[in-house]
Amino acid sequence: MNYRELVAEIKRKKSFLCVGLDTDLEKIPSSVLSRSDDPVLEFNKQIIETTLPHAVAYKLNFAFYEARGPQGLVSMERTMQFLNNRAFTIADAKRGDIGNTAAMYARSVFDYYKFNAITLSPYMGVDTVEPFLKYKNHWSIVLALTSNPGADDFETLETGEGKVYERVIKKFATSQMSEQVMFVAGATRPETFATIRKHAPDHFLLVPGVGAQGGNLEEVCRFGMNNSVGLLINSSRQIIYASSGNDFAAKAGEQAQIIQKQMQQVMQDKGII
Amino acid sequence: MNYRELVAEIKRKKSFLCVGLDTDLEKIPSSVLSRSDDPVLEFNKQIIETTLPHAVAYKLNFAFYEARGPQGLVSMERTMQFLNNRAFTIADAKRGDIGNTAAMYARSVFDYYKFNAITLSPYMGVDTVEPFLKYKNHWSIVLALTSNPGADDFETLETGEGKVYERVIKKFATSQMSEQVMFVAGATRPETFATIRKHAPDHFLLVPGVGAQGGNLEEVCRFGMNNSVGLLINSSRQIIYASSGNDFAAKAGEQAQIIQKQMQQVMQDKGII
Repeated sequence: MNYRELVAEIKRKKSFLCVGLDTDLEKIPSSVLSRSDDPVLEFNKQIIETTLPHAVAYKLNFAFYEARGPQGLVSMERTMQFLNNRAFTIADAKRGDIGNTAAMYARSVFDYYKFNAITLSPYMGVDTVEPFLKYKNHWSIVLALTSNPGADDFETLETGEGKVYERVIKKFATSQMSEQVMFVAGATRPETFATIRKHAPDHFLLVPGVGAQGGNLEEVCRFGMNNSVGLLINSSRQIIYASSGNDFAAKAGEQAQIIQKQMQQVMQDKGII
Repeated sequence: MNYRELVAEIKRKKSFLCVGLDTDLEKIPSSVLSRSDDPVLEFNKQIIETTLPHAVAYKLNFAFYEARGPQGLVSMERTMQFLNNRAFTIADAKRGDIGNTAAMYARSVFDYYKFNAITLSPYMGVDTVEPFLKYKNHWSIVLALTSNPGADDFETLETGEGKVYERVIKKFATSQMSEQVMFVAGATRPETFATIRKHAPDHFLLVPGVGAQGGNLEEVCRFGMNNSVGLLINSSRQIIYASSGNDFAAKAGEQAQIIQKQMQQVMQDKGII
């Protein structure tokens, strides 16, 4: 899915919501656990069915699948097959390695599992991202300023020409890359979005941290939205664990719709739709 | 395996060699491909058999296994079962994510696959490493200064109080952490080992880049070795692809022995053994 198609999909659904499938076997309702031989897949299917009308993207957090060994990856593969290109898909894997190793990760995420995008850690430099950019119409989502307390350990260190995360954005925010590169920008620091937009006016930002981590949707939009929206806002726990009972899927759908309505209002106020 | 046990094993084998199992299906000899239903496992088994007398550690590069989907992880799991604690094992996964996600990665690598250590990207800060430190006698190997050209993009940026990679080392090189934290330091920049040792005199360093990438063993040892050796030097392609023929395992063993003999000489010269 390219830039133009992603923007069109956002306008069609009046939503820039990304649902995070951080699916934890220990939090799946017992009714699902007892009825399915792949309860993670079954949980994901039901969540996708009720949230798909309100969301444009799904982000699968690889750690939650890898924790169960190869079988967890089977659940992930089947979830991707179930989604079957009905939404923009993000491999939240935060990979970051050099040349031939990065090429192998790209093969895994883009060729094997068929994701549209992958999150990447920039620590080792530009050559950790380049192998992913060879896949046209696929996206590299580079960590910039994250929403966790540890973001201040290294990301915000001053380098003389901007903080480390600004140097990261400047390195990857060339115009030719706006079609294939996004940045991760945490919702818990909305005041930094102005700085991020200064360096990357056109790029999409993937924004975690709204909801459970305390980020505020309106503030993120005020400082972070551009004329093509330019935001994918992720919500994981707030949606997929909206209820721990048998109504989990229905409640997830309701929660996704509440957020979608807020997003629609913001897009209307901004004159985008 | 704790610090004391690792040092004892290095002295017993007179080796601080780590063999990198970056096993690529496309580079496996046709005789192995045609004889086994899990050629990656079969290749690894034969490499391990011939190199185990000369190596103290094995590093599995996750990308090469993940590229084949869940089946690749089955090959990894079986390789770990075959190794069965006969050496120090490193999950070269370069993970780096927050709190509950990091805990899931730790569960995957330490609980499920039973690795002794994992490589981690420090970009997001200290809270990306803490969940791994809760596993006693397990190791977090934090990226510091890597051996690729892109290392100069962010790792070597000046921050006013040292370069970014020095800030990383200082943050994690507390004395209490020397029992559970190592650093990745690339062999292609031996002159930087003096700086690294200034900040982390006691910590183990995992050193890639000797051999195929051009790093020099003697130089790395001259600047990087401490009184407990304090080095694990990795070689991947130089060993496992020493021959592309049916003698690949024998040649890998010979190559590992050549490096082990060099290491033994260095340890003797230094009076460690």
